[in-house]
Amino acid sequence: MQNGNLKQGTHYAAYDSGTPLEWMDHTLEIQGLGEIRGKQFLKDILQFTGCEISVNSLPSGASMPVYHQHQENEEIYIFIQGQGQMQIDEEIIDVKEGSVIRIAPNGVRTWRNNGNQPLLYIIVQMRENSLRQYSIGDGIVLDKAVTWPN
Amino acid sequence: MQNGNLKQGTHYAAYDSGTPLEWMDHTLEIQGLGEIRGKQFLKDILQFTGCEISVNSLPSGASMPVYHQHQENEEIYIFIQGQGQMQIDEEIIDVKEGSVIRIAPNGVRTWRNNGNQPLLYIIVQMRENSLRQYSIGDGIVLDKAVTWPN
Repeated sequence: MQNGNLKQGTHYAAYDSGTPLEWMDHTLEIQGLGEIRGKQFLKDILQFTGCEISVNSLPSGASMPVYHQHQENEEIYIFIQGQGQMQIDEEIIDVKEGSVIRIAPNGVRTWRNNGNQPLLYIIVQMRENSLRQYSIGDGIVLDKAVTWPN
Repeated sequence: MQNGNLKQGTHYAAYDSGTPLEWMDHTLEIQGLGEIRGKQFLKDILQFTGCEISVNSLPSGASMPVYHQHQENEEIYIFIQGQGQMQIDEEIIDVKEGSVIRIAPNGVRTWRNNGNQPLLYIIVQMRENSLRQYSIGDGIVLDKAVTWPN
């Protein structure tokens, strides 16, 4: 895939969001907040039906300008590069690559990059309590040997 | 947070999974497949209610030993480092950092690392068609100025 290319098949969609350091190039118009740099929502591109996912880059020294909550969606933040802080219900949590945070809809959240590099992270939101079965329990392993072309 | 530490509050849980290059240190016992290295499921640790998420590292040259499908969950693969290939319904898709792939439950999938570095990726699974509202549409922006301690 080339950057920005979308490839679709019967049971899949594949998209290249660019390297994480290129995520800052994405811009997004949000009503009431103006143009946001460094955030791209993927649901409408890839036609997710069970969640929204965004890829995000926040520059060194930058902070989110607002607190927000959610109506019915749980959110999960997965940090993959950089250093920052999440503030949830006035508690402060240091985050870095590999940090994962679940926030219930009512949690009052904001975050900032207090490191020297871009803070790169993925946000997933999905309806609270919507999962019924998971992990290996939802999988079906096929009785068929794996083959790859040369 | 220190590696492996879990911190919990009323509306959140925060966990450090280690740096992505440390994800190979995670081991997981899967009935019928034996011990899997380089995969950690996070739902039970962080008490997700709307999805399962795993953090994954596959060594250079390694392939998944089986094909699998899902019963009711959509899966999304987010690649953050390395180079590999997904095989979905016998189609081959090249993946690298920034590639994102949605697979419907019926998609027959396997993947491999055909690069020279570890292939690092995040897998999210959630019930197909479970999302009702999303992105900014599910958010509530608070009318309260953001403050941080010094």
